[in-house]
Amino acid sequence: MKFKHKTVENVRLTDRFNTRQQIIGTIYLTSTHLIFTDPEGKRETWILHSLISSVDKLPTTQQGCPLRVRTKHFLSAEFLIPKERDCADLHATLNQLKPDSYEKLYCFLYQAPNYLEKIWDPFLPATEYMRMGAPNQHWKIEDGNSNFDMCDTYPPLIYVPTLTSKAMLFGSSKFRSRGRLPVLTYLHPNGASITRCSQPLSGFSARCQEDEQLLQCILRTNPHSNTMYIIDTRPRVSIPVKSSSLRINAVANRAAGKGYENEGYYSNIQFKFCPIENIHIMRTSLQKLLEVSDMKNPTMNQYLNALDSSSWLQHIKSVLDAAIFIARVIDIEKKNVLVHCSDGWDRTAQCCSLSSLLLCPYYRSIHGFRMLIEKEWLSFGHKFSDRCGHTTTSDNKEQSPVFLQFIEAVWQLSQIYPTAFEFNERFLISLHDHSHSCQYGNFIGNCEKDRLDLCVKERTYSFWNFILQNVNDFKNPLFRPQSSYASEVLLPVINAQTLKFWLSMYHRFDSALLPKENISNTLTRLVDHTTSLSDHARLLEKRIRELNSTFDNNQTTTTSSSSTTTSNEGVDDSDIEKRNHHNNICLPEFDSGLSDVDISQGRITNSISSKLNTILQPPPSLSDVESGFSGDYSPHNKALSSSFILPHQSSIDLNDIPTLERIALELNSIALDWRSYNAPVHCACSLPFDSAQRKYNCWRCGENYCTRCIERSIHLPGLYSNSLAPVCKTCARSIKSSPSFADFSALVKSKSTDFIRSQTAMKLSRSMIDQFINDR
Amino acid sequence: MKFKHKTVENVRLTDRFNTRQQIIGTIYLTSTHLIFTDPEGKRETWILHSLISSVDKLPTTQQGCPLRVRTKHFLSAEFLIPKERDCADLHATLNQLKPDSYEKLYCFLYQAPNYLEKIWDPFLPATEYMRMGAPNQHWKIEDGNSNFDMCDTYPPLIYVPTLTSKAMLFGSSKFRSRGRLPVLTYLHPNGASITRCSQPLSGFSARCQEDEQLLQCILRTNPHSNTMYIIDTRPRVSIPVKSSSLRINAVANRAAGKGYENEGYYSNIQFKFCPIENIHIMRTSLQKLLEVSDMKNPTMNQYLNALDSSSWLQHIKSVLDAAIFIARVIDIEKKNVLVHCSDGWDRTAQCCSLSSLLLCPYYRSIHGFRMLIEKEWLSFGHKFSDRCGHTTTSDNKEQSPVFLQFIEAVWQLSQIYPTAFEFNERFLISLHDHSHSCQYGNFIGNCEKDRLDLCVKERTYSFWNFILQNVNDFKNPLFRPQSSYASEVLLPVINAQTLKFWLSMYHRFDSALLPKENISNTLTRLVDHTTSLSDHARLLEKRIRELNSTFDNNQTTTTSSSSTTTSNEGVDDSDIEKRNHHNNICLPEFDSGLSDVDISQGRITNSISSKLNTILQPPPSLSDVESGFSGDYSPHNKALSSSFILPHQSSIDLNDIPTLERIALELNSIALDWRSYNAPVHCACSLPFDSAQRKYNCWRCGENYCTRCIERSIHLPGLYSNSLAPVCKTCARSIKSSPSFADFSALVKSKSTDFIRSQTAMKLSRSMIDQFINDR
Repeated sequence: MKFKHKTVENVRLTDRFNTRQQIIGTIYLTSTHLIFTDPEGKRETWILHSLISSVDKLPTTQQGCPLRVRTKHFLSAEFLIPKERDCADLHATLNQLKPDSYEKLYCFLYQAPNYLEKIWDPFLPATEYMRMGAPNQHWKIEDGNSNFDMCDTYPPLIYVPTLTSKAMLFGSSKFRSRGRLPVLTYLHPNGASITRCSQPLSGFSARCQEDEQLLQCILRTNPHSNTMYIIDTRPRVSIPVKSSSLRINAVANRAAGKGYENEGYYSNIQFKFCPIENIHIMRTSLQKLLEVSDMKNPTMNQYLNALDSSSWLQHIKSVLDAAIFIARVIDIEKKNVLVHCSDGWDRTAQCCSLSSLLLCPYYRSIHGFRMLIEKEWLSFGHKFSDRCGHTTTSDNKEQSPVFLQFIEAVWQLSQIYPTAFEFNERFLISLHDHSHSCQYGNFIGNCEKDRLDLCVKERTYSFWNFILQNVNDFKNPLFRPQSSYASEVLLPVINAQTLKFWLSMYHRFDSALLPKENISNTLTRLVDHTTSLSDHARLLEKRIRELNSTFDNNQTTTTSSSSTTTSNEGVDDSDIEKRNHHNNICLPEFDSGLSDVDISQGRITNSISSKLNTILQPPPSLSDVESGFSGDYSPHNKALSSSFILPHQSSIDLNDIPTLERIALELNSIALDWRSYNAPVHCACSLPFDSAQRKYNCWRCGENYCTRCIERSIHLPGLYSNSLAPVCKTCARSIKSSPSFADFSALVKSKSTDFIRSQTAMKLSRSMIDQFINDR
Repeated sequence: MKFKHKTVENVRLTDRFNTRQQIIGTIYLTSTHLIFTDPEGKRETWILHSLISSVDKLPTTQQGCPLRVRTKHFLSAEFLIPKERDCADLHATLNQLKPDSYEKLYCFLYQAPNYLEKIWDPFLPATEYMRMGAPNQHWKIEDGNSNFDMCDTYPPLIYVPTLTSKAMLFGSSKFRSRGRLPVLTYLHPNGASITRCSQPLSGFSARCQEDEQLLQCILRTNPHSNTMYIIDTRPRVSIPVKSSSLRINAVANRAAGKGYENEGYYSNIQFKFCPIENIHIMRTSLQKLLEVSDMKNPTMNQYLNALDSSSWLQHIKSVLDAAIFIARVIDIEKKNVLVHCSDGWDRTAQCCSLSSLLLCPYYRSIHGFRMLIEKEWLSFGHKFSDRCGHTTTSDNKEQSPVFLQFIEAVWQLSQIYPTAFEFNERFLISLHDHSHSCQYGNFIGNCEKDRLDLCVKERTYSFWNFILQNVNDFKNPLFRPQSSYASEVLLPVINAQTLKFWLSMYHRFDSALLPKENISNTLTRLVDHTTSLSDHARLLEKRIRELNSTFDNNQTTTTSSSSTTTSNEGVDDSDIEKRNHHNNICLPEFDSGLSDVDISQGRITNSISSKLNTILQPPPSLSDVESGFSGDYSPHNKALSSSFILPHQSSIDLNDIPTLERIALELNSIALDWRSYNAPVHCACSLPFDSAQRKYNCWRCGENYCTRCIERSIHLPGLYSNSLAPVCKTCARSIKSSPSFADFSALVKSKSTDFIRSQTAMKLSRSMIDQFINDR
């Protein structure tokens, strides 16, 4: 089908919750987007074709013909189109957009902005298993699936008990639905493990010796326990409910020759059901939830009833309950757990990934969370294309919000533990949206084999690269890796009262319902401001010390003795020690230049870590970790500042003092006050801000700017760390035109050739990995 | 009854949601508190007798005898007491604690800490009416009630239309329930007003000429409209519900000779019901809500059903809906509104105060909100003692959570507009608790007359003084008076989706259900840190300029020309202007010393403002308002720093340079990094922190401390503003022992005798009032 561009003018777009607000504008239909824009171009709505979930023509009214477009990222837009024919035309065109093959997906057409390259930071499962401590005496790498012979929806390399044989594995895979035999997915520091598989083809009495042996081998990998759990994440039997016709449970599966393990055939096994409903019930539940969202002005009664009868939060709770149960067994009972559902790619993926997240703090970092998605969801074959309905080739009945439920469960946990996750809500929402958008190759196809066949890594951009390039937008300002909640196993008490309706996911386009300021954005800016100020103050303190000493030298008074006594006046020893530990500003100890970095690098002394070098980046400096800031602009490259650090005070030479020009430039480059953390109405470019938008403050003038008006990569002379900082275009121009800046800039660049690269690194990853490897 | 102290040992206290957590300790019953403490004294629970709402003896178990104590601030504690006799004894004693007269209330015994004095910052209604613009040509002050002759539950001075006569007012008061005639309560800048009263004694046909005339006079005060609204905040007729027997509605009142205005007798009136249920239904609703809170591990289904059937959020929504309707009439339709319910002291107080809050930003400040409470709730006779059940003299059926509903409605609004309110959640919770605690005299009795009779102002402490002395704990870190939402009329879209269950009110003692970090506390600390750093950096920049100039002078090089050129290098004129506007750091313009304050004081040129001087405090400096910080420690007393400000650089004399000792002290007095914003596990004193607790960072060492370990009032030499800042006791000792500090401190004190007083001022109040007066 050749696509024809369309333009429809005089269209009215109504805010569905604030019906007083209307915009009149034009619809442009391009080959990839439906774009609605007002005449001044200030309010634009871009809808990617691949995100459209439904297009409905509503009954014509006197004002025109309403066309309702709903998207997979929960936008519901009602366009009032003057002419009936235009409406019908748009309706027909939009309804034919879904591609009929993978080859026509958006990712194969998408032209990314310049800063994104077609670079795929490789996911090496071996790295992740190595981090967990496998292979070891109990677990080995098995290459029997390298040609997808055992299981075509599994990764080529799988991890199985050392004692297993190829025959045993092939035997077990024949006895498991879709060949998805039990394999290792998570190994806890205490030796307990999570393995995952699909249901056995047991019917009421069938058995398989190899499968039974494999489970015994898994049991024996854990020296701490002589029993293990099998967790079936399906409901055991149907409870009669309205939609029970859709319910296929574990018992019903038995009748179909599948089902669950016969406890009589497997010894030392504790069998447990953790009931989570199937994809059909979940799909219906989401539909009902979206009907709740659509209610225009419900009474509290209607709303609570509708929310209740959607059962959405109940389903989220059942997923979390199962994950917490598994985490508790691993951490407290120290027993192995084997998890399965029917095919082991929906509920099993949810439970294994969530329980890993609870058990291991690494998965709560951005880098670690990526590993979790790559391992549990992508490599183990969650059917993204079928579940998200990427193409017309799969049945609509295959669609289900399984991945969304996982993401929401993570969000609910992040609400309970606001300091434990490195990523923010925007990250989770973005992850969800791009699992549907087909803009990046990551979520295309139903398994690794599909993506290999499609050569996505050669032909498309990677979602993770997009995240990496904009990582500051996705960081949780409250994250603190050292906090107790960030470094421990999380075993929350999930009460009905603790789960919330996720307004900013399901109503993110309905500004009338949202708080008028996004607290997380405000927090991010506050943390950035604090970082800027402490970095600046550090430089200023240094300059004062220099000037003081120089002055003293110049005066040839009794400088050295006085500078020694001053530092200690009225301060006892323990006090000095305490303050040094935290802010290094006592005079004698200050300004050792590289010491912070040296100390932190001194900690990384691990042979395994060198193997990881290919994919990992330099660690943050000590003070960076200490302050808990995760902004890209925090002083993690202090080493560079050594270029300006003068030798110890007493030996300061007049020629080493920065020029007056330089000092003026330094004082002139950092705003002490920032314009406003809260609710600025619009950017200097007159783009109106809404509460959800990411706003930036220029570090030099302190004003508010939108993404388009900020430059992200200027070295500001006023920062001790010489980090890259965001400044507005006016300030960037003005600062760059200073002659002193040229010298300064040359100096910074000469000191580090790979400076820019280190800026885009996913920080913390390496030190966290080291920590985990060291823990073993 | 003479009170006997009791001690019961080996008592177990179980966390009601995390049953794994148990503390064994001792109960001490004193004359004012029930205290439970563990042997180390680390976990203490203090329950004020006057907050206890019920004490139940539960069936004895093998472990002991459980005693459940519930409080009016939503603590539910179950003590397991070893001996049955001890339990019965406690039960009997605790059940007899409620005083049988006002004279025995806690406020008449309470001995406050030293820093609180028995000072009552007087509430002068005249001041508040003057701020709104009354008296004026349309409204006058009426002293006919100065001896409570018209209405004993009204204040002595009332505001009525200029055209009314005493006879007309007395006539109307006789026709209104409890004599509560229509009087002015809020006057909008556009001339529209809110008046309030009780129901007319109209029955089905009675009429009163004076009352009809009074309403015509009220109508004529508004030149913009020839009609006005009467809003009856009761449901018109009963809708049959389960608890309908309790429902007395407007129509039923008619049958009792009361009811609502007969539209035929009042001309140019639009009559409207805004249905809010009565005190009995509200009481039952709260009971049901608390039953929801008590559910141990409900399914989502059970929880949502129970929440729904409590109707609590529905009631909150109906109160908000009524208030928004009134605000819309005043602001958009520009019409007067007369509000009443039955007696005009419950629903009327809710609606009038909430609509005022929506209409006028002043009421969203701490000072303004106090005025709102004083006016709408205290002076107009909300029956606090009856509604809160302070004594045994009033009927239990008189108790009702009317004030709580108002507070929750404000909280719901603060969730929608996070930047519009100066106060935080802690403030609202504290206000609620102390309306029950009887610790302060403010909420004692049922009307002004009661409090005058009891001489509360002479005999008790004031709640507002307590707030004032701890004002930093009650400030919303996101508040920004300049933001559009803070300065405008708020007309929110209240959808069922936007209202939330207030977890941190009703479950504040159930840490298992709460997020593991309080975001608002974290925000407060971040803002404090930013304030500290920018203040410090300002001083450092000043020092560098001084040292630079001195150095130059000393060197006798071409200083003056170079210092002029440096500031402008590569910076064009518009750029300088822009930066000066925000942070004043360009060299030539910097350091005018008093200029910030001068500018802001220059704005206050209003004759009326001088009349308010007795109760109001100095305004914040410009930069303070600009930065949006509302911490007590923000640089609002910059005038003082002039003591250190040297004359313009070119004339700097060597003798003016601070000594090296002073500079060392300055560098040594501010922590650049703060220990942790998030989830520190315990204070240095080993007190365990929980998520709800207020934590402080020492500004000097950056460590975390609890309230008991922090000193709040040290002048830190490293701050440009010389503000008072919180430091830990170790740092306080060490900094005070420095010889330089003594000089510095003397200097600060000599500059301002009333420095301390200005610290405790409720800031912003005056400039906000001026703004409103100027608006007229």
